[in-house]
Amino acid sequence: MSSRKEWAYIKSKTAPKGLFLPKDKVNISPNDRGFMFADGVYEVIRTYNGKFYRLPEHLKRFQHSLDALRINFSDIPLIEAAIKELLARNKLPTGDATIYLQVTRGVWQRAHEFPPKSVRPTVYVEAARFVPQKEYARLGIAAITASDIRWGRCDIKSIGLLANVLARQRAVENGAMEAIFVRDGVITEGTHTNVFGVQKGEVITHPKTNHILAGITREAVLHLCATYGIPVCETFIPECNIPKLDELFIAGTTTEITPVIKVNGKPIGTGKPGKLTKALQVAFRDHVLAAAR
Amino acid sequence: MSSRKEWAYIKSKTAPKGLFLPKDKVNISPNDRGFMFADGVYEVIRTYNGKFYRLPEHLKRFQHSLDALRINFSDIPLIEAAIKELLARNKLPTGDATIYLQVTRGVWQRAHEFPPKSVRPTVYVEAARFVPQKEYARLGIAAITASDIRWGRCDIKSIGLLANVLARQRAVENGAMEAIFVRDGVITEGTHTNVFGVQKGEVITHPKTNHILAGITREAVLHLCATYGIPVCETFIPECNIPKLDELFIAGTTTEITPVIKVNGKPIGTGKPGKLTKALQVAFRDHVLAAAR
Repeated sequence: MSSRKEWAYIKSKTAPKGLFLPKDKVNISPNDRGFMFADGVYEVIRTYNGKFYRLPEHLKRFQHSLDALRINFSDIPLIEAAIKELLARNKLPTGDATIYLQVTRGVWQRAHEFPPKSVRPTVYVEAARFVPQKEYARLGIAAITASDIRWGRCDIKSIGLLANVLARQRAVENGAMEAIFVRDGVITEGTHTNVFGVQKGEVITHPKTNHILAGITREAVLHLCATYGIPVCETFIPECNIPKLDELFIAGTTTEITPVIKVNGKPIGTGKPGKLTKALQVAFRDHVLAAAR
Repeated sequence: MSSRKEWAYIKSKTAPKGLFLPKDKVNISPNDRGFMFADGVYEVIRTYNGKFYRLPEHLKRFQHSLDALRINFSDIPLIEAAIKELLARNKLPTGDATIYLQVTRGVWQRAHEFPPKSVRPTVYVEAARFVPQKEYARLGIAAITASDIRWGRCDIKSIGLLANVLARQRAVENGAMEAIFVRDGVITEGTHTNVFGVQKGEVITHPKTNHILAGITREAVLHLCATYGIPVCETFIPECNIPKLDELFIAGTTTEITPVIKVNGKPIGTGKPGKLTKALQVAFRDHVLAAAR
């Protein structure tokens, strides 16, 4: 973390009009439903050289998550304005950055049911310099598999991420960079990425169901495959088929497209980033530079 | 909420030595892992006339939850001291109260994996007057069933309660007081209670697995059944058997033993609190008065 003052944005019970504050001065109430119930949603957005990648898509998905939880918040223009102001205040008008947004159901005395309608959601936004891990993209990463014990609404980008935390930690402790979740015998997704296999020239990824997040980078990958005539099948990859895959890669907002060259210590394909994965990385880079304008 | 000043206890990055503060002055960092990842655990403890009910059991379960998540906190004496001081400060030396404790993995810049070992957990404790809902205990409540879409480690009392929130809200909107979760066709538990059926004089409740919390009141119920020679079977209650139950009740720290007289609008048994349920309520009351000394 830089020692330079980092600004954040907060709109909450105690800051009802919304405030830009140094991040370490932002205060959340212990009775915030985000702190006591994981009752909130979030987004992570990238800029490339100061330009947003797929901002409207992220904000649309954010609204989808809010609506799915019936959190009464729809002031997307407020969020957009806060993001832009934070990029300026944090001196991120050029270069790469990530923006983190979170909205919770607000502050109320603890009780499971929703608080009264008069309770306003809490809005929090932060923005920081992002340094891509170029080595991972170039050389590929190791992954482990982990039992997908998450809840049944992984299509909602909620802050209830404890299962992701535990799986990711186990990955790190096993010298891996990602944990690939397996539910009912098939790969669902990673702890913060979507997962794609390649077999005989075909790209395979879990269909959009309640068990995965509809990733924005996932959409881009599917779009690029369509553009370049790469066949795609949105279907299940059984865990037992992992050794038969020619290539494996993960995709996400900060991960972009990253080859997975090893799972549970065993090499995938040649044990090096695959040809199709590398081609998609090149295509994605062009796509991003065109999209983030 | 009373307008009288309510004290709470906080030990965190910005209050490393621990502080008693008016509750509305307690500040949580937005980068607390409890706010961004549901990376924490909690307990709710009751006092009866100023005396704790099963305090050591609650603290033992709290430690179990912490250990299950590998949150590096074991200063139970600190928690005990904070609880006692809060009861005094909040003028709760007599009468009924609830104590809420929460410990999270602490404050660190957002990343799924655990923060460095130097990061200290956040400790938060509050205590408030509790007014039992005597009508519910006397007349029984209505419940609905809800698909149990929670994660696979419901034996850990984590703050990842979003599925509980959504189910409980649906119950309230349907004129019910509790939602009874059904997973794979069988009753698991309620949103904040354990569930017991009675059929032909036998008490039936879900066995202790990863799909339910090992409730302390649940233990008391089983203990009372053993004492009074009531047969118990820890087995599954299929959802389709609900209409065949003679009685149904829920049990929990604040709920105690409460009859369920209706599920999804249909009466259970006679549609009134059952005989065995009422006998257990009486026995539980005696048990509590003896235990909370």
